[in-house]
Amino acid sequence: MRRFGKRADLVVHEESPFNAETPRAALAEGPLTATDAFYVRGHGPVPEIQPSSWRLRVHGLVERELELSLATLREAFPEREEVATLQCAGNRRAGLMAISDIPGEAPWGPGATGTAAWSGIALADVLALAGPLDEATHVGFVGADLSPEAEPVQPFGGSIPLDKARRPEVLLAWAMNGEPLPPVHGAPVRMVVPGYIGARSVKWLERIEVRSTPWDGYFQHVVYRLLPADGTPGRGTGMPLGLVALNADVLSPADGETVAAGPVEVRGYAFAGGERSVERVDVSLDGGVRWAQAELLEDLGRWAWRQWRIVVDLAPGEHEIVVRAWDSSAATQPEDEAALWNPKGYVNNARPRIRIRAA
Amino acid sequence: MRRFGKRADLVVHEESPFNAETPRAALAEGPLTATDAFYVRGHGPVPEIQPSSWRLRVHGLVERELELSLATLREAFPEREEVATLQCAGNRRAGLMAISDIPGEAPWGPGATGTAAWSGIALADVLALAGPLDEATHVGFVGADLSPEAEPVQPFGGSIPLDKARRPEVLLAWAMNGEPLPPVHGAPVRMVVPGYIGARSVKWLERIEVRSTPWDGYFQHVVYRLLPADGTPGRGTGMPLGLVALNADVLSPADGETVAAGPVEVRGYAFAGGERSVERVDVSLDGGVRWAQAELLEDLGRWAWRQWRIVVDLAPGEHEIVVRAWDSSAATQPEDEAALWNPKGYVNNARPRIRIRAA
Repeated sequence: MRRFGKRADLVVHEESPFNAETPRAALAEGPLTATDAFYVRGHGPVPEIQPSSWRLRVHGLVERELELSLATLREAFPEREEVATLQCAGNRRAGLMAISDIPGEAPWGPGATGTAAWSGIALADVLALAGPLDEATHVGFVGADLSPEAEPVQPFGGSIPLDKARRPEVLLAWAMNGEPLPPVHGAPVRMVVPGYIGARSVKWLERIEVRSTPWDGYFQHVVYRLLPADGTPGRGTGMPLGLVALNADVLSPADGETVAAGPVEVRGYAFAGGERSVERVDVSLDGGVRWAQAELLEDLGRWAWRQWRIVVDLAPGEHEIVVRAWDSSAATQPEDEAALWNPKGYVNNARPRIRIRAA
Repeated sequence: MRRFGKRADLVVHEESPFNAETPRAALAEGPLTATDAFYVRGHGPVPEIQPSSWRLRVHGLVERELELSLATLREAFPEREEVATLQCAGNRRAGLMAISDIPGEAPWGPGATGTAAWSGIALADVLALAGPLDEATHVGFVGADLSPEAEPVQPFGGSIPLDKARRPEVLLAWAMNGEPLPPVHGAPVRMVVPGYIGARSVKWLERIEVRSTPWDGYFQHVVYRLLPADGTPGRGTGMPLGLVALNADVLSPADGETVAAGPVEVRGYAFAGGERSVERVDVSLDGGVRWAQAELLEDLGRWAWRQWRIVVDLAPGEHEIVVRAWDSSAATQPEDEAALWNPKGYVNNARPRIRIRAA
């Protein structure tokens, strides 16, 4: 069954709300992720919105409140395109759950990420029209999707700092990979906040609220926060997630695959959030004693992951391939997955490892 | 002997050019580092510059070349102050040298860092007057200090991306902690580039060159680059350093100190470069199995380190204290110092460890 126009090979974690991740093989198909393979992280039923009656409300700490139709957005502002990687904060949670269970959370593998070309308009242009007041420091986004899992029940929402909101890469997007945005990805208009966790790229956008404090709704003040291992989720506990941490994965060969002994091409991705870029990817066959450098493939711009490849020579037998990326702040990935365990299972960015057999 | 007005307790690595680091005890004195204790990383003799005859040349990809006196800078532009941490890329190199020797490099300990209040004017204001052309993407800085170690001999220089150069925190500074900038720290005017490695905060500034490529001088194209462990330094090899990686240290008690058993206060700093901030500091007494959270002390703003404290209860005997900071991208420090070893000994940001005895 193909739900929401998605391929049958997606790994479905939940039917309602629909939550599904992209298999590694689909991520390996190219630097842009096909729309019908792109992961979906939803918190409520997909709302049905008539584009003709849709309005965007902009309010809060602004000189002028706005209520804008889709036609007005298209006419009033120049269209922009950004290639950007989205990554869910729960990506690779399964690795943490293997260390110690995380009840109530879905066991996302490494496919809660993908890269697309997004088109729409710059949030900065809309904000300039509204005129943020001097005391404005954050910009909140609210979707039309009512989430039954929220306490109390509320639409999905979140905020980013005004500094970021004013940068040209932050979009109100209505197209994905050159096609109209599909309903499951937030049609008619969604936020795309490059460099930030997927939860800030609010779908089914209805309302932009300019504020003097970060968003205090359930999905930013309780959920999507990083707790110490012995912490307890609660309002304002732990650190709010925002910028994406440096991460990487091996996309091919598949974990557990048997390949022909001899030269084997290994491919993967690396992604650095925030203002950082991927500068180097190291691959080790001896558990991290010696490292070789992978070739970085096509540069899709500063907001996209970087795919990479390396040819390793494998003798017959079992092999473990370990990878670590480095970003432009000279940061690399932590070794020890267990040391990253946290009660909600976020931000597993340990060095990825796969095991393969050469025969 | 007090050279350049510095305290006698600085650890001097080289007399000429003068290179000296701050002892941990001085860093522990407070969130701002006293000017007479602040580390000095020099690449040539300290130039003697008459402020009255000093001129700043601004040229390259600009609409208007400028030649500005100090009096003009003071009169034409609004004065700004930023509290910013500087950190040398070679900070904590000694830890890497303990793993494998790094010939020709000084064994900097953890004191090649410090935090000061810097006053001057925004580079952005000077650039706005010069008018960068459309093809401009980088801004280079050249000092008056001729470095005999450079090949060929040349003044110290480096560049930052134009995007960063236009942000208000990047200063042309003439004062440090409320006093005129001392000669050894770059008088009459130095760059201060918060969030970037110290090497970009060029001292004895003489020239600003707006460019379409990163700086290709010795100190950015050969030196201050991160190589793989088996790499060889050379022109354009390795990745250029720029943004500071997340780092931390224990400042008190001293490594090797004997303290009274019972409650012991542990203090330190944590610093996240770029646009990131320190969000959490964890302290472990059992090698990283269990972690307690330190209290983050005074917030000096987004460009400064964050000092922290925690009280741990120590039974009589030997103890190892391990620390890991977390930044606002949810990144933490790598465990394994050996895995960070590189031929120039840069960016040792492994979890700091100290051993103390409780008696």
